[in-house]
Amino acid sequence: RVNGDRLWDMLMDMAKIGPGIAGGNNRQTLTDADAEGRRLFQTWCEDAGMTMAVDKMGTMFMTRPGTDPHALPVYVGSHLDTQPTGGKYDGVLGVLAALEIVRSMNDLGIKTKHPIVVTNWANEEGARFAPAMLASGVFAGVHSLDYAYARQDPDGKTYGDELKRIGWLGDEEVGARKMHAYYEYHIEQGPILEAEEKQIGVVTHCQGLWWLEFTLTGREAHTGSTPMNLRVNAGLAMSRILEMVQDVAMSEQPGAVGGVGQVFFTPNSRNVLPGKVVFTVDIRTPSQEKLDRMRARIEAEAAKICEAIGVGCSVEAVGHFDPVTFDPKLVESVRNAAERLGYSHMNIISGAGHDACWAAKVAPATMIMCPCVGGLSHNEAEEISKDWATAGADVLLQAVLETAEI
Amino acid sequence: RVNGDRLWDMLMDMAKIGPGIAGGNNRQTLTDADAEGRRLFQTWCEDAGMTMAVDKMGTMFMTRPGTDPHALPVYVGSHLDTQPTGGKYDGVLGVLAALEIVRSMNDLGIKTKHPIVVTNWANEEGARFAPAMLASGVFAGVHSLDYAYARQDPDGKTYGDELKRIGWLGDEEVGARKMHAYYEYHIEQGPILEAEEKQIGVVTHCQGLWWLEFTLTGREAHTGSTPMNLRVNAGLAMSRILEMVQDVAMSEQPGAVGGVGQVFFTPNSRNVLPGKVVFTVDIRTPSQEKLDRMRARIEAEAAKICEAIGVGCSVEAVGHFDPVTFDPKLVESVRNAAERLGYSHMNIISGAGHDACWAAKVAPATMIMCPCVGGLSHNEAEEISKDWATAGADVLLQAVLETAEI
Ligand SMILES: NC(=O)NCCC(=O)O
Ligand SMILES: NC(=O)NCCC(=O)O
Repeated sequence: RVNGDRLWDMLMDMAKIGPGIAGGNNRQTLTDADAEGRRLFQTWCEDAGMTMAVDKMGTMFMTRPGTDPHALPVYVGSHLDTQPTGGKYDGVLGVLAALEIVRSMNDLGIKTKHPIVVTNWANEEGARFAPAMLASGVFAGVHSLDYAYARQDPDGKTYGDELKRIGWLGDEEVGARKMHAYYEYHIEQGPILEAEEKQIGVVTHCQGLWWLEFTLTGREAHTGSTPMNLRVNAGLAMSRILEMVQDVAMSEQPGAVGGVGQVFFTPNSRNVLPGKVVFTVDIRTPSQEKLDRMRARIEAEAAKICEAIGVGCSVEAVGHFDPVTFDPKLVESVRNAAERLGYSHMNIISGAGHDACWAAKVAPATMIMCPCVGGLSHNEAEEISKDWATAGADVLLQAVLETAEI
Repeated sequence: RVNGDRLWDMLMDMAKIGPGIAGGNNRQTLTDADAEGRRLFQTWCEDAGMTMAVDKMGTMFMTRPGTDPHALPVYVGSHLDTQPTGGKYDGVLGVLAALEIVRSMNDLGIKTKHPIVVTNWANEEGARFAPAMLASGVFAGVHSLDYAYARQDPDGKTYGDELKRIGWLGDEEVGARKMHAYYEYHIEQGPILEAEEKQIGVVTHCQGLWWLEFTLTGREAHTGSTPMNLRVNAGLAMSRILEMVQDVAMSEQPGAVGGVGQVFFTPNSRNVLPGKVVFTVDIRTPSQEKLDRMRARIEAEAAKICEAIGVGCSVEAVGHFDPVTFDPKLVESVRNAAERLGYSHMNIISGAGHDACWAAKVAPATMIMCPCVGGLSHNEAEEISKDWATAGADVLLQAVLETAEI
């Protein structure tokens, strides 16, 4: 079993970097706070005897050697970047629990055949640079490095420039490494485990996603002196599309969600009808068929809505992954570990996307989840208990030891 | 008659300051560009023999003396500030035409009994600091100076600080002056004069306005892992309110408008349901009864919409004026001037708010309008012809001379 107090202390220390405004964190990717968080994590890993490599996307790989020089490593990780108003555990728990299991192995003098590589993937959240899981996506060959470097934040700064600026551009080719297996431990970010009173979520699948960025073009005009019948109101079209996305998601229940988190009006002045409205629709479901249908329905309905009021409508997919099925053998080792340790558990489908979803393209991969209070995440009030955090880390230790072979 | 070429040249010279991105202007109030525009205008006025006074709101009063030392001045003006993506004529035409009629009087050796004060009101647009017509509102006793100084732009900078920063904080008490009359010449900003093929709009009324700033409070949560039935989605509530505002405006036709130009999502991240959505509803109509009813309907409906999905809803009125009736005698002198000069004309109600609406509270006031292409304003593509500009300035000259007495 791991040292739960030590894990918790690391979580609290990391949370001091990039503090939020309401008890959580703003440690967005490739910011100065991100760089500071990385340095602290590096120090901890090196103190635990690991050696660092950084790839050209800025992902950190911290290696604990194995006993067999020919054995591929078992990767264990998640991400240290956060949402602008993020919690202290989303991603961070998975990275620091991975470090904690290495510290526990050190304490217990456990050696494994396969090396263990504790991994901090860059830009998982996708809040500053869409899409989410960008570095693991390049690693898995889903995106090119050029595509990733050109991604822009809302101020127009690029991923490539910002990675250089914070000093974390590594020299390792992205995706050059081969993995024996990949494990990721994460908070659920949803309400199920808490409601079902289970300590451990055995993650069998991850739902698929589309991020559809709409650009609506209306006609900038005076809100006071432009008669209703002469308006080409892109804001009104946006409203109708948001309502339609809600309807589409509701009509695909159960097992589907749809919503909008980001909206930009231009010029965004109280007495100017917007000439341009840009927003991103986020739809998800574990069913490939539903995912395709929802996207098609939303694009078709949006085109009709815009046409009816003369608003121009273009759509760009700025994020996408198909539903994922995790590796049955690794899933089994997670379930067995929970069972052995006497923790209550249940199968669960991940509602959020994770680096494990891309890792699953290039290696056997799976995830472990612990509950979070009220299912709340992407909110500074995100909360878990030390017991929950510890139970999942115990399961992670046992499952990784099985795969890495003592 | 005025010198139309000279007026046009001034318009084009002023448009070089704070250029926009598509042929118009971004010379928002209390920016460096605003300061530069003010300096150019000051130079022109002083070259025409006028002397400057500036009040504590930053409004510029340029005086051409009259022959009777006891006669109150006739004020003629508008504003030099623009929208973030504004046109070259909105406001600017009225200020520079006022200067042009003084230059024409100088050329012709005309002296008036009443002094003439060419006026550049500060912060008419209200784009950077709500409400619109802020300085004329303080002048008319509608707002206190403290209220005005505390108004914030989206970056949290205050009117008071920014006025000092650009060096245009004057020492004259706001509203200390008495006016014999106030004239304002402006582009229509709507489609009527062009459609009716009239050169001159004789402005009899101005419609009333409410700016209702809604703050909706939802629950920040993950767009992927939060089931539909657990969402407290402030963005969805915003959408429904926008659609409802459209419905209310349509149900009050003819003679009513409603729309939304400004929306802010917080934290505005693609995978976070917004915890807060702030937006401003702009409703206008010339009927006092309708204006009151529309506001009441919108607030009541919005409360219901939010309650149904558990979103918190608060409303602050950040802009308001009741419908205005302009001074019949001044209106008559505008009509007579157009008639005398042989310009086609019609009565018109101003769709936009103007400093004349506040001036009307403390003095006889009226306005003159010229057409604009396609009724387009608050758009960089705003356009007028030199002939249109000149015709209105001719009418302004004649009407002002009648009131200021030769
Ligand atoms: N786990 C998590 O919140 N990832 C961000 C990507 C997503 O939106 O699912
Ligand atoms: N004339 C003009 O555009 N004024 C701005 C205030 C308003 O929104 O009516």
